[in-house]
Amino acid sequence: MITISILGSGKVAHHLILNILEQDNIALQQVYARTPDKVSNLVSHNQIITNISELKPADLFIIAVSDDAIEEVSNAIPFANAFIVHTSGTKPMDSIQNTNRKGVFYMLQTFSLDKEVDFSEIPFCLEASNVEDFLLLEKIAIKFSERVYKISSTQRQAIHLAAVFVNNFTNHLCTLGEEICKENNVPFDILKPLILETAHKIEVLAPKDAQTGPAIRGDQSIIDRHLNALNDPIKKEIYQLITKSIQSK
Amino acid sequence: MITISILGSGKVAHHLILNILEQDNIALQQVYARTPDKVSNLVSHNQIITNISELKPADLFIIAVSDDAIEEVSNAIPFANAFIVHTSGTKPMDSIQNTNRKGVFYMLQTFSLDKEVDFSEIPFCLEASNVEDFLLLEKIAIKFSERVYKISSTQRQAIHLAAVFVNNFTNHLCTLGEEICKENNVPFDILKPLILETAHKIEVLAPKDAQTGPAIRGDQSIIDRHLNALNDPIKKEIYQLITKSIQSK
Repeated sequence: MITISILGSGKVAHHLILNILEQDNIALQQVYARTPDKVSNLVSHNQIITNISELKPADLFIIAVSDDAIEEVSNAIPFANAFIVHTSGTKPMDSIQNTNRKGVFYMLQTFSLDKEVDFSEIPFCLEASNVEDFLLLEKIAIKFSERVYKISSTQRQAIHLAAVFVNNFTNHLCTLGEEICKENNVPFDILKPLILETAHKIEVLAPKDAQTGPAIRGDQSIIDRHLNALNDPIKKEIYQLITKSIQSK
Repeated sequence: MITISILGSGKVAHHLILNILEQDNIALQQVYARTPDKVSNLVSHNQIITNISELKPADLFIIAVSDDAIEEVSNAIPFANAFIVHTSGTKPMDSIQNTNRKGVFYMLQTFSLDKEVDFSEIPFCLEASNVEDFLLLEKIAIKFSERVYKISSTQRQAIHLAAVFVNNFTNHLCTLGEEICKENNVPFDILKPLILETAHKIEVLAPKDAQTGPAIRGDQSIIDRHLNALNDPIKKEIYQLITKSIQSK
């Protein structure tokens, strides 16, 4: 039985807790939450602690707090040589300083509290300061997911940057698309099959080969008409810049 | 039996032909193709014409050619009062001029020759100059798809513009994400579940509510680190502009 304690109560902690509770060979030891209400519907009252000093020993401590709090939370763990990992896409492994047994357990996915996520499809990006601890992380991750990768801190930072482009930024372009629909009394639903197909197409085609539209065709008359139709200066600027970027490839 | 002739041999024509051939109550009359080879694997030799003057009468002529050629192709159809529609997302219905029975049969989807598309999920945006002809278009479209909309030329142009944002531009951001992966020896496959989940999330959440990442959190230290990591000036400019746009909402 592998014992794990979770430090954090946000979206990542929430999904981790739910999935640990489903496993036979993993025991959720404790959950550290500054706001116990945020996890009280998931775990029993006596498993929740509001002070890190109340932690019991565990095989693994997973820190799932905001990037800026990782160091402070890690430093407060009251055991010498505990195995401590964080779940950040951007912080280096060495932001954990109070142990030689450190690692990263980064789940490359977008989490919302109100949307279930299929853990088995999530890529787990693992890193650890020694081989044995890496193997423990791997043993845990393969219970959750079929996609487990060994990823260095440098690679992870690149993945996180790429993820901002393919998730945060694409999502925002959909927000802009929704605004354009609203302004013209068109239901945004009409665009949803296209949005899904755009993602599915990339499963089988490299995105460069999947590119369509007026920019790649060099259809200047449509580009001009679109720019004319855009009243919002920032939408216009985004249209021009991405069109230029598509045409530069 | 409804008889339809297709004018065009590109991606849209290709998918239309395939789906018409599957219907019991629709007969594919003829296909006009400047390059017969492009459709010779789909329809029999004697159905393909290379000169529009060889067209036989049909209940509906669907023009699926590039926007700039619609008028010329339409004008060459040798029948008075034929029912002629185009499939363009951007051209007004009135770009068909040689008949009073005109319309638009716009399929809001991204097509590639080498990727099957589920027609039943495609939104069909229909418009016609008279009610009877509209009903004919609707009768045909509901055989193909569960998503049939009555959309004016003005609305269609807004949809097409929004589609550029949610499809063409999001796809390009994935191209940039792939480049970042390649530069750092990370397999792009690692991002595919995230790309799919981004699209699925929008099925249940408004994109504005689904927004995550450093821009919406106002995490300037990560934003600065990302900007530092980007050597390509156009990627850097896109990062800054979309971050600004997210933060302006």
